[in-house]
Amino acid sequence: MYVILVYDIGEKRVGKMLKHCRKYLNWIQNSVFEGEITEVKLKEMVSIARGIMNEEQDSLILFKSRDERWLDKQVIGVERMSTDTFL
Amino acid sequence: MYVILVYDIGEKRVGKMLKHCRKYLNWIQNSVFEGEITEVKLKEMVSIARGIMNEEQDSLILFKSRDERWLDKQVIGVERMSTDTFL
Repeated sequence: MYVILVYDIGEKRVGKMLKHCRKYLNWIQNSVFEGEITEVKLKEMVSIARGIMNEEQDSLILFKSRDERWLDKQVIGVERMSTDTFL
Repeated sequence: MYVILVYDIGEKRVGKMLKHCRKYLNWIQNSVFEGEITEVKLKEMVSIARGIMNEEQDSLILFKSRDERWLDKQVIGVERMSTDTFL
């Protein structure tokens, strides 16, 4: 399935979460990821993410679609994270 | 149509952009909005957003879907911006 992931994570935990999410999805903006992922891999990703985040302070939202073609993406301004290579 | 909007905006401009986007969509996370919007209203929103942002530094991504039912949303952790009322 196709997934958009957005998070709002406390500063202390955000680096770890970024590295974690990049293992599963494409990083497209500061705290936004997208990509194709299986149900099994998504469950694994969420399970590990729960361990990283503080569920009383942090937020992670997933938008799931069976097919990427149902979504039309438009980028305005900077196309790609220029910091994509610094990690 | 149903729209998800995510932005990464320089600190000096982010307050203005937040206020602007909230006029059109629902604020669901730090820099994430969603909602039903017409094509005409969306064009108006993007046009004004371009005037607020620095297109060489800032980024705004729109995911558009004809129907919200094609997307399944899952929230992990904090459900709503606790700062929603401070503006």
